[in-house]
Amino acid sequence: MHRTRVRIVEDALDANNTIARANRDDFDRHGVTVVNLMSAPGAGKTSLLERTLADLDGIRTGVLEGDVQGRVDADRIAALHLPVVQIDTAHGFGAECHLDANMVRSAIPSLPLDDLDLLVIENVGNLVCPAEFRVGEDHRVMVSSVAEGEDKPLKYPLMFRACELVLVNKIDLLPHLDFDLDKFLYHLEAVHPGVERMLVSAKTGEGIDEWRSWLQRAATRELAPA
Amino acid sequence: MHRTRVRIVEDALDANNTIARANRDDFDRHGVTVVNLMSAPGAGKTSLLERTLADLDGIRTGVLEGDVQGRVDADRIAALHLPVVQIDTAHGFGAECHLDANMVRSAIPSLPLDDLDLLVIENVGNLVCPAEFRVGEDHRVMVSSVAEGEDKPLKYPLMFRACELVLVNKIDLLPHLDFDLDKFLYHLEAVHPGVERMLVSAKTGEGIDEWRSWLQRAATRELAPA
Repeated sequence: MHRTRVRIVEDALDANNTIARANRDDFDRHGVTVVNLMSAPGAGKTSLLERTLADLDGIRTGVLEGDVQGRVDADRIAALHLPVVQIDTAHGFGAECHLDANMVRSAIPSLPLDDLDLLVIENVGNLVCPAEFRVGEDHRVMVSSVAEGEDKPLKYPLMFRACELVLVNKIDLLPHLDFDLDKFLYHLEAVHPGVERMLVSAKTGEGIDEWRSWLQRAATRELAPA
Repeated sequence: MHRTRVRIVEDALDANNTIARANRDDFDRHGVTVVNLMSAPGAGKTSLLERTLADLDGIRTGVLEGDVQGRVDADRIAALHLPVVQIDTAHGFGAECHLDANMVRSAIPSLPLDDLDLLVIENVGNLVCPAEFRVGEDHRVMVSSVAEGEDKPLKYPLMFRACELVLVNKIDLLPHLDFDLDKFLYHLEAVHPGVERMLVSAKTGEGIDEWRSWLQRAATRELAPA
């Protein structure tokens, strides 16, 4: 008799990873590149999307908004005339502080995947748990505002390690802060050597072309999925 | 025969609340007032403590630092020559994004409670989960930095509702931000009507006397525990 033995090695994140892979398969089948955008509350994720998504050349873009509550961000993105779907983590998900693969899965039927090249998932503002939950993305990007202080890579290393691009935002504030940019970049290099970084300001537009071009390359798969 | 029926109505936070009450009993027995200080990453909790704790008149103060990793904040507080105990949520607690009552309980034997009037618990930087877990505190205070944007009370209402005092920090940056203070206060009033608020700047010292005096009144129990 033929017997197969399946060894079950499960950790708490196994189920999440299984669903994340299913999500990614669905996105791949529709040719949609997915970017998971993460940051602390108020680091400027939505502003950086407002600055770029409206003029991505020929790239059909949608946004999946993760928020504990409220539709402030979803309304801001909808004003760009882009399809936006909101996941409200306070309803049915027990006020989760992050998106997980299953929440994103539940949103897939509401997403016009056939009409998209790029989907940006704006995660819940939090520097801890979002880094632990893959949601089926091709790329993970984080935003770190200089107003948060230069010690953040040391205090939240998992987040800074989880992503392939760090957008250092609000650099227009540098003259008004006791923020040592060199020290921040030194800490960043210590926790994630060689990670790509861009200095940007959603307010003045500095660095925004570079960020838009990164999204463009991700959407056209010129940039290989991570 | 005498029969007693105990109805068990348990929610996920019941065990936490039981331990929180035990912690509070211990703190009460030693006459220690406990303040749970919460905020998003980089809002300025540690800076606001550095500005005040060293010169609290006649108040013996200690700090319990909650961090996912690293000892940056604990070192800053120790430099004030105050007793500081650090809870590292990445070791043994599975990289928790908040402190809970059991973590604080495990730190109690390391705290010199007999020699303290005031204990400040600096929670993990996060606007979601810390609001859900009581740790045995008398007072809950949050810091919201104006650099985070005026929509934060709408997006994280539980946090803004959970506390009795909101420190609106980094007001020195107001001239350099598109931050409408009136709108922020309007949103705050909408989610937590009448909550006490102070406009402060850890950098310039504005409002710091008021915050120091609040801590003083809390420590001497002039301010009733919540």
